[in-house]
Amino acid sequence: MIQEIREQPAALQATLQNEASNVQALADRVRQRNVDFAVIVARGSSDNAAKILKYLLEIMAGLPVALAAPSVVTLYKGRLDLSNALVIGISQSGQAPDVTEYLSVARAGGALTASITNDPSSPLAKAAESHLALHCGPELSVAATKTYTCTLALAFLLAKALSNDGAEAALIPDLAAKTLLLEPVIQPLVERYRYMRECAVLARGINLGTADEVALKLMETTYSPAKPFSIADFMHGPFALIEDAYPCLLLAPNGAALQSMVDGAAKLKSGGAELIVAAANKDILSLARSPIPIDFQVDESLSPIVYAIIGQLFAYYLAVSRDLNPDQPRGLTKVTKTN
Amino acid sequence: MIQEIREQPAALQATLQNEASNVQALADRVRQRNVDFAVIVARGSSDNAAKILKYLLEIMAGLPVALAAPSVVTLYKGRLDLSNALVIGISQSGQAPDVTEYLSVARAGGALTASITNDPSSPLAKAAESHLALHCGPELSVAATKTYTCTLALAFLLAKALSNDGAEAALIPDLAAKTLLLEPVIQPLVERYRYMRECAVLARGINLGTADEVALKLMETTYSPAKPFSIADFMHGPFALIEDAYPCLLLAPNGAALQSMVDGAAKLKSGGAELIVAAANKDILSLARSPIPIDFQVDESLSPIVYAIIGQLFAYYLAVSRDLNPDQPRGLTKVTKTN
Repeated sequence: MIQEIREQPAALQATLQNEASNVQALADRVRQRNVDFAVIVARGSSDNAAKILKYLLEIMAGLPVALAAPSVVTLYKGRLDLSNALVIGISQSGQAPDVTEYLSVARAGGALTASITNDPSSPLAKAAESHLALHCGPELSVAATKTYTCTLALAFLLAKALSNDGAEAALIPDLAAKTLLLEPVIQPLVERYRYMRECAVLARGINLGTADEVALKLMETTYSPAKPFSIADFMHGPFALIEDAYPCLLLAPNGAALQSMVDGAAKLKSGGAELIVAAANKDILSLARSPIPIDFQVDESLSPIVYAIIGQLFAYYLAVSRDLNPDQPRGLTKVTKTN
Repeated sequence: MIQEIREQPAALQATLQNEASNVQALADRVRQRNVDFAVIVARGSSDNAAKILKYLLEIMAGLPVALAAPSVVTLYKGRLDLSNALVIGISQSGQAPDVTEYLSVARAGGALTASITNDPSSPLAKAAESHLALHCGPELSVAATKTYTCTLALAFLLAKALSNDGAEAALIPDLAAKTLLLEPVIQPLVERYRYMRECAVLARGINLGTADEVALKLMETTYSPAKPFSIADFMHGPFALIEDAYPCLLLAPNGAALQSMVDGAAKLKSGGAELIVAAANKDILSLARSPIPIDFQVDESLSPIVYAIIGQLFAYYLAVSRDLNPDQPRGLTKVTKTN
């Protein structure tokens, strides 16, 4: 897992270089067809990436996005009218049968279909009209790392191609490399949480999917119940869970969602929570018992890649501090097939 | 809270009677306008109801539905093209500022807008072109109960009006009354979970929103971290959390999602989980350490109402068994406003 985490700058570079023209071709097709909304179909880590793609497409390109409920098609045989939709299936293995079925049914019904996989010969890759490949090489660790961030890179490229605006995609590999320099900060910091029983992972806006993904990494590798929340939703109910020293990991990049995170952090701290904060902003870092300071510029639209890597390192080193093997989580297999 | 739980048959009756023609008028407008997808905006319990409305609209009416990310409009000022969309805002108080803002922006952009609230004079009720009212009377308990199930009743009515098909809506109050007869089953059953630290709430398909809502009720009233999952997603990662006697509450009504629940239950049990199962099906009930048998017929499309009430009773009596006051959860207020 740590090797695959460290391979991310190179994998991102390869994915961006090889897929830029395919992404542009897909964007051209979206413009030519009568597409007025998008649907994304995915499970697990890919579903977390899908959530981020939703925000990027909506914010950057103004294209409304639904996250699919695959069972509507696979179990309930719902007859969705997707003739004006772009339907995107995401699965690193490309083996997810329900994602493939959803895409096939949508394509037969006249939708414009695209897939993102790490295996161009997989069923999902073949089911879609357009295929965008992750250029990650084999991912052997059960916990997805490089395939996840490379999916995010393609998500960003697609939103940018549909908006003709946004940050420079070429920055991405370097951002990943700079994030990896936080390893010596994160490794000693996690020791404090060796006996933590559970925690919340909080974000807002674009990085809600990152909170989901970081919580999933924590659960996969350390078996600590980690609960992802929008900091906005957290105040609607789960705030009642806050006890003295309840650990909350806050993902708080600079951008439109930052103020909401700063306000939430202050409330959480006064409610007795212990805050672990990954941020560049000094105000929110000053509220942290365990700060993870980001000392380089990141556009909010690219922050999910940076914060995912921070979460990977946090989960990996916490597992190591617990003498667990993060490469082989108990009870899990790499490819889970849902029918 | 228990009084409001028990008022549900009457509140459902009042809501169905008073709103049937308004729902029909909204459905007519959807047909007249060029609507090819829907967007639902909500937070907290209303967002759980929104998730169920998505399944009902997609399965029964074939209308693709996106659950809105309110911050795309409120924080990021994304310019979504919603001119072909039906946008539905849900908030029992009608006070949620971000839901109201999203609806107002969508309406100004040409969307067909509708709202569901328990207060026709609220900002959200006034922001929408169509308003559907909950006829619940005041809801005083912090944990939403009757406003939640009445929202589900309207959700069902709308999906039915758009599909000209489906179960008999007039059955709903009687189903709620029959569910309340489970009180003497659930009250003694929860004693066993007095010292449970955490649990998972599992469902699939239409009842994923029910799992979210039941987990929220449990957290609001008992402070036990309760984690809602699709049983399909659970096998993608969180299954690693399963330890001996890990409590899993399974919501498993008859219908298209049942087989998946039965398969998952068998795996969970062999993995060492303790199963609490609400179901009519004898196979899955036989796997339960704590069965909650449903002895009346429920169409799957109406099951979210029945299973929400079961979850309310479970959460209420578990709080009582812990000598907590479910009417006044610590750290929570009835109306939470997100900007």
